[in-house]
Amino acid sequence: MSTPTEPRDLHIVVWNENVHETRGDATVVEHYPHGIHTVVADGLREHLPHADVSTATLQEPDHGITAERLAATDVLFWWGHVAHDEVSDAVVDLVVDAVHAGMGLVVLHSGHYSKPFKRLMGTTCSLKWRNDGERELVWTIAPEHPIAAGVPHPIVIDRQEMYGEYFDVPRPDEEVFLSTFAGGEVFRSGVAYRRGLGRVFYFSPGDQEYPVYHHPDIRRVLSNAARWAAPVSGRRELTADPHPRDWFLTDGAGRQGA
Amino acid sequence: MSTPTEPRDLHIVVWNENVHETRGDATVVEHYPHGIHTVVADGLREHLPHADVSTATLQEPDHGITAERLAATDVLFWWGHVAHDEVSDAVVDLVVDAVHAGMGLVVLHSGHYSKPFKRLMGTTCSLKWRNDGERELVWTIAPEHPIAAGVPHPIVIDRQEMYGEYFDVPRPDEEVFLSTFAGGEVFRSGVAYRRGLGRVFYFSPGDQEYPVYHHPDIRRVLSNAARWAAPVSGRRELTADPHPRDWFLTDGAGRQGA
Amino acid sequence: MSTPTEPRDLHIVVWNENVHETRGDATVVEHYPHGIHTVVADGLREHLPHADVSTATLQEPDHGITAERLAATDVLFWWGHVAHDEVSDAVVDLVVDAVHAGMGLVVLHSGHYSKPFKRLMGTTCSLKWRNDGERELVWTIAPEHPIAAGVPHPIVIDRQEMYGEYFDVPRPDEEVFLSTFAGGEVFRSGVAYRRGLGRVFYFSPGDQEYPVYHHPDIRRVLSNAARWAAPVSGRRELTADPHPRDWFLTDGAGRQGA
Amino acid sequence: MSTPTEPRDLHIVVWNENVHETRGDATVVEHYPHGIHTVVADGLREHLPHADVSTATLQEPDHGITAERLAATDVLFWWGHVAHDEVSDAVVDLVVDAVHAGMGLVVLHSGHYSKPFKRLMGTTCSLKWRNDGERELVWTIAPEHPIAAGVPHPIVIDRQEMYGEYFDVPRPDEEVFLSTFAGGEVFRSGVAYRRGLGRVFYFSPGDQEYPVYHHPDIRRVLSNAARWAAPVSGRRELTADPHPRDWFLTDGAGRQGA
Repeated sequence: MSTPTEPRDLHIVVWNENVHETRGDATVVEHYPHGIHTVVADGLREHLPHADVSTATLQEPDHGITAERLAATDVLFWWGHVAHDEVSDAVVDLVVDAVHAGMGLVVLHSGHYSKPFKRLMGTTCSLKWRNDGERELVWTIAPEHPIAAGVPHPIVIDRQEMYGEYFDVPRPDEEVFLSTFAGGEVFRSGVAYRRGLGRVFYFSPGDQEYPVYHHPDIRRVLSNAARWAAPVSGRRELTADPHPRDWFLTDGAGRQGA
Repeated sequence: MSTPTEPRDLHIVVWNENVHETRGDATVVEHYPHGIHTVVADGLREHLPHADVSTATLQEPDHGITAERLAATDVLFWWGHVAHDEVSDAVVDLVVDAVHAGMGLVVLHSGHYSKPFKRLMGTTCSLKWRNDGERELVWTIAPEHPIAAGVPHPIVIDRQEMYGEYFDVPRPDEEVFLSTFAGGEVFRSGVAYRRGLGRVFYFSPGDQEYPVYHHPDIRRVLSNAARWAAPVSGRRELTADPHPRDWFLTDGAGRQGA
Repeated sequence: MSTPTEPRDLHIVVWNENVHETRGDATVVEHYPHGIHTVVADGLREHLPHADVSTATLQEPDHGITAERLAATDVLFWWGHVAHDEVSDAVVDLVVDAVHAGMGLVVLHSGHYSKPFKRLMGTTCSLKWRNDGERELVWTIAPEHPIAAGVPHPIVIDRQEMYGEYFDVPRPDEEVFLSTFAGGEVFRSGVAYRRGLGRVFYFSPGDQEYPVYHHPDIRRVLSNAARWAAPVSGRRELTADPHPRDWFLTDGAGRQGA
Repeated sequence: MSTPTEPRDLHIVVWNENVHETRGDATVVEHYPHGIHTVVADGLREHLPHADVSTATLQEPDHGITAERLAATDVLFWWGHVAHDEVSDAVVDLVVDAVHAGMGLVVLHSGHYSKPFKRLMGTTCSLKWRNDGERELVWTIAPEHPIAAGVPHPIVIDRQEMYGEYFDVPRPDEEVFLSTFAGGEVFRSGVAYRRGLGRVFYFSPGDQEYPVYHHPDIRRVLSNAARWAAPVSGRRELTADPHPRDWFLTDGAGRQGA
C-alpha cells in the first residue's frame, strides 16, 4: 500500500463565529471554555502533528481572514450558527474565491447555512432539525474513501441535535456518511463537492450544546477531511483568473473567461 | 406543468421465483395466496390502468422469459430470494441484453442478489440484514424525482426486515430514497442506474413475510418506477449490436464494437 | 413504450437580453431580425404545438419577469451575452427562488456567465473560447436521455463559435452532449443539474453570429429540454419555504429551515 | 500543501496478453521489442522509484496471476486486445474479487473489452473506432484530480487509433480526461469508478501500433493513476467476505451478505 502521508507543512485555519462562547451560553462554555475553534484545532493537531493549525474568529479584524492569509491556507474549517449574517460579504468573496483557486473548505454542522457554503452550493441548504439530545449513528457508505479511514461503522454519538432530510443541497459528488437518529430520521451527514480547483466537505456532527468535537472518532474524521481537502498539486496563485496559463493551448488563439 | 402521461401501451412483466408460495410457507401464503407477482401486478394496474401487465415465474418453461417476450417488454420487475441459482444463465443473458438494449428493470428486495442485478452492477451487492419485523421509514432525498411523486415523507412501513449499509453497489446515478429502521440502521433503499440504453431501479422494501406490496405508498412507488424505467423513445430492436446505426457518422469509416 | 407526452399546458418563457438586436449588430439582425428569443420560441412551438410559449426581454419593465409570471412558468429559457450586469439582482433572486421551488431553467450559450446560472452553480463558470466560425459536432453520450431523443449522432453545426474546456462548473448530475470543434477542442455542451426542486439544463450551441437556432436538430434539443425541465408533479407554490409541509413528519416536532 | 507522497512499498503488477509481440507483429515489435508491459513498467518506475513494479503475461502459468500474488498487489495494470477470450474465467474471478476487496485496477486501451473490465462495468463496453493514425488531444476536465497532476492541457499524441463515443460504460464516478481526434470524434478517455473497496481507472491512449507508452505525459498519467488507485488504508485480506468485521455493529444481531 501507499504509506500514509505525513503532511509536513499542511496549513489549516479553523474559523469560528465564537458567539455562543463569548456571550457565555452556559452549556457551550462548559464543553468549549476556550471556544469551539480551539477544540477542533486540538483535534486536528492530535492526528496531524506536523500541520500548522491556527484559528480565526468573527470578532477579529476582518474576521481574521485576509487574502494573504487564505493564500497561505490549504484547508479552512468553518463553524457558524447564530451570526451568519454578520460575516461581511467581502470576507465571503475571499473565501469563495480561495476555494475556486484550490483551497479546501470543511464546513461544520450549522455552517450549512453559512454564506460561503450557500454561495458554493447554489441551493437553500435548508434541512429539518429537532434538538432532543438523542443518539446519532454515523454510518459509512463509502468504505474506500480516505475520509472514512479508521472509524467504526457506525460512529456512535450519544447525544446530539437531530439534522434530517430533506437536505436541500446539490447531489453530492461523493457521499461518505449517512446519519440516523433515535427518532428515525436520516441525514446525509458527510458529503463532498468539487468547486473549481477546490474541494468542499460538509460534516454535520457538532452542535454547540454537546461535546461532539471531543469525540475521538469525530476528531479522526476531521483530520481525514483536512488531508483529503488539501490541494493535490500545491497551493495555487490566487489571481483573478483561477485557471493558470498552463491550462491553455500555447497558440494564444483561445481565451479563458470573458 | 406537463400533464402526467397516461401510458397507453406500456408493457410490463412481473417476474417472481414463486418458491416461498409454491412450497407453502405459511406467512407468505397468507399475504400472497396467489404469489407475490400477482399482488405487485395488481398494484401496477391500479395506478396504470392502460398498461399491459403480465407475470412470469421460475416454474414456467424458460422461466417464462424468451427473447420474443422481452422484445415486447418495456419494464421487467424481478423478485427472487431463495432460488437465485436456479435461474438459468441463458435467461440471465437475455435479461441483461434486453436492459442494454433499452428495457427497464425494477429489482425488488432480495433481488439485490439476483444474477441479473449482480451482472449489471459488477459488485457483490452484499448488504447487512436482520429480520426483527421492525418499523422502516422510507425518506425521499430527491423530491423532484418522478419516482418519488405523490408519496409521503417518510413512507411508514410498520413491520419489515431490516436491510442495512454497507450496501455493496456502485455509486448510484440517482438516489431517491433512504430507509431507516427502528434498530438505527440506514439503507439506500431506492437507487437508480443507467446500463447501456436501459434504466435500472432497485427498491428494497418488500420482504415475503410482511404485506409490503399491499401498502398503498409502496404500490405508488412501483408504478412511478415503471413509468420512469420505460424506454423514452420507443422500444429498440434487440439486435446483437444494441446501438442502432443512427448512432454513427454515415461515412462508414468508423465501426462500433469489435 | 410510453406514448410520448403531448403537453397540454406547458408554460414556457424565453428570455433574451436582446441587446445585439436592438443596437443593430448587422450579422445578428440578419439571422434574428425580430430577436433571438422569437426564433427560439418558434422552434419550441414547432415541436410543442400545445405549449404556451411567450417571450421576455431586458428592455421590458422588470425585464419582463415578475414573481407572478414565474409562478405560472414551467420552464424559463435564458439567453444573455453583453448585458449580464444590467440584470437587476431582484430579478435574479426571483429566478433563483423559482428554480429552487421547481421551475425548470434552460440556459443557452453565453448565458453560462449570466447571474442566475452562476448563482445556481457556485463556480466561476468560465470557459475557453475562440470565434473562428468553425464546425461544431455535438455528440450524444447519454443515448437513453430524453433530451437526446431524435437527434443524429453527431449533430453537425457548420459554423460556430468555439467553447472549450476547462469549463468551470460543478460536476454535472447528467451529461448529455459533448462537442468537438474543428480546432480540436472539446466542450461539455449539454449538462444537467438539479437545484432544489428545479432542473437546470445548460446547452452551449447558439452564438448570436450564426443561425444556430434555425437548425432543426438544435430546435429539437431545445424542445426536448423544455419537456425534461418541466416540474414532474405540478407547479409548486413559490413560498418563502420551497419545501411544502407534506415533506415533514406530522408530529410537528421537527422544523425545516432556520 | 500536502507534501506529495513518496510511496515506499507500492506493489504494482503490469499484465499484458503479449500476443502481438510474441507472434512478431512488425510495428508492435519495433515500438515494444520486449513487450508493451515492459515499457509500461519502466514508465511507472520512472515516476515511482520506490515502488515494486513487476509484470505478468498470458503465456505464463495461470497467466502469471494467482490469489497469493494479487493479495500482495496494490494496483494491477491490464493490457489486452486480441486474446481476451483466452483469459481463463478462474483468473478473471480472482481479479474481480481482488478489486472488490480493495486492489486498484488500471485498464488500458483495448482492455475496455477485457473480461475483468466488462464484469466490473456490467455493460457491453463497446465503442466506435477507426485506425487512421491521427492526432489525439487529451483534455483535462477535472483539473483538481490527482490523476491529472502535472500534465499539459491538452496532452498531444501525434498518431493514434481513434476511439469514439458512444462508449457503452456506466456513468463514471469521476471523469478526468476527454479526447478529441483529428476526424472530429470525442471519447471519454480517462474515467474512474469505485467497485466494492477497489478503485478502477480506464485510460484509452495506448494502441499497440503507436509508441504511446513512451510518451512522457502518458507515463505521468499512468504513474498518477497507480498512486490514486492504491488502497487508502492498507491492503485488505482477500477473504470470501470482502467486508471486514469492523464494518458491523458488534451486537452480533446483524449479518452481512447471504
